[in-house]
Amino acid sequence: MRIGFIGLGAMGAPMAARLVAAGHEVHGFDVRPVAIDALVTQGGHAAATAREAADGADLLWLMVVNGEQAENVLFGDGGSAAALPAGALVVAACTQAPAQAQALAARVAAAGKVMLDAPVSGGVAGAKAAALTIMCSGSEAAFATTQPIFEALAKRIFHVGTEAGLGSTAKMINQLLCGVHIAAAAEAMHMAERAGVPLATMHEIIAVSAGNSWMWGDRGPRMMQDDPPVTSAVDIFVKDLGIVLEQGRRVRQGLPLAAAAMQMFLAASGLGHGAADDSQVIRAYRAMNGKGAK
Amino acid sequence: MRIGFIGLGAMGAPMAARLVAAGHEVHGFDVRPVAIDALVTQGGHAAATAREAADGADLLWLMVVNGEQAENVLFGDGGSAAALPAGALVVAACTQAPAQAQALAARVAAAGKVMLDAPVSGGVAGAKAAALTIMCSGSEAAFATTQPIFEALAKRIFHVGTEAGLGSTAKMINQLLCGVHIAAAAEAMHMAERAGVPLATMHEIIAVSAGNSWMWGDRGPRMMQDDPPVTSAVDIFVKDLGIVLEQGRRVRQGLPLAAAAMQMFLAASGLGHGAADDSQVIRAYRAMNGKGAK
Repeated sequence: MRIGFIGLGAMGAPMAARLVAAGHEVHGFDVRPVAIDALVTQGGHAAATAREAADGADLLWLMVVNGEQAENVLFGDGGSAAALPAGALVVAACTQAPAQAQALAARVAAAGKVMLDAPVSGGVAGAKAAALTIMCSGSEAAFATTQPIFEALAKRIFHVGTEAGLGSTAKMINQLLCGVHIAAAAEAMHMAERAGVPLATMHEIIAVSAGNSWMWGDRGPRMMQDDPPVTSAVDIFVKDLGIVLEQGRRVRQGLPLAAAAMQMFLAASGLGHGAADDSQVIRAYRAMNGKGAK
Repeated sequence: MRIGFIGLGAMGAPMAARLVAAGHEVHGFDVRPVAIDALVTQGGHAAATAREAADGADLLWLMVVNGEQAENVLFGDGGSAAALPAGALVVAACTQAPAQAQALAARVAAAGKVMLDAPVSGGVAGAKAAALTIMCSGSEAAFATTQPIFEALAKRIFHVGTEAGLGSTAKMINQLLCGVHIAAAAEAMHMAERAGVPLATMHEIIAVSAGNSWMWGDRGPRMMQDDPPVTSAVDIFVKDLGIVLEQGRRVRQGLPLAAAAMQMFLAASGLGHGAADDSQVIRAYRAMNGKGAK
């Protein structure tokens, strides 16, 4: 397949290289020329613009930061959509709000192309190991055509439904749970530290109990550090829970736990910790409740 | 060791039998005579009253429902504390508020005995398999003496600290996370069902994603059922999150996620679903948000 690949960042670069290794003709574009050069050394082709990458492609993979960038690549200055052959596939693999994915898919369809709403999770490690998770929605035919591409990149591939927006909804719901679980872990850890329960013991107890979560295992140890390395920042959850709550507003759905978690991330950011590791949402609890009597 | 064992219910009965099998002289009491008979057939001794079970015991194990019952067994009509030899151990294995455990330990100490604050988790299945988790606080010496007893019953034994209340705090923090995670799972599942994401697919995605929790795996499938069997009722979390929030009130600690989760369990109970499986907290979300447009 001839593939245009837009966005050769920390995740996009190893993904594009995997597609080259799987035998596809990959034309890559990134705003950083050095990223394009790296793809070329791995057997890919350089595109001077996003439009050039799209020109004549069977499939255009958008591995950009958000929905605004995806829209701009397709219909803004880049104008890649016009360069794609009629009936070509657009894979919107960026994280965006369900409503954005729906609107973008409609615009792509109006231009005579077919979009898959296909956000990914698994991060840089998953991209390097071709072990991503893909939550895809779009027509059965488009999904079937893209399946071999997905299989070159991901360990788990879910076809969530035929309507655009469902893939992004599934990813957003995962982010809802992630954000609530990190804040809940901070609330619990702060209760333990205030009561004088040794935190390492507390962590071990929960890890083998019904209160366990993936986030407790991952973020918990970093909550016990004063200034842990940043794997994902507080402000990322201000953004992601913002998308969740905005969607709730749009469809008129009260989300009390997501809303409560959001306040804690906002407070942590407001305290000046927006760039700190998201485990440091615990600082908002400390600011709010103090050290306390036991 | 000569052990008095009070409370031969679904968990207590197999635990007392384990202690008999481990070679201890177990004098058991329960308000239901049939439970005492069952222990006797397994090699235990019948006690006509709690006080008789305590009489001359090296250790009195309290496997009752709550702190009020524990206090009544020791100092109420039962008056077991007075029957215990000086320096005997009292293991308060019931779930109770940290403040209750502290007050009870002080009263036991004033009576010349030693209390361990040692709530257990793992349920009936854990009790039958001698695979419980014990979160114990109390003096090093008392913990060391009781260690072989704990080992006959539990797979994981944590000595949380020397002060009474810390064991109960650890258990309470686990309940905080359990309650928040069940409500968060319902919030997420309800968002999926309202958006038209197939729930089985949603469940599978989260199970392999960073949003996963022990509760998502356990309660999630029951959320997808209209009337699942009751493994633990909505009203149990009204009680347990009530203990969490009461402790927060006592020590002046805001717990916004626990508070939000509590409102959903209260609403579910208010809707008449208090006796339903706790997964059915999702009914409160449905009542609140309706079916919704996609």
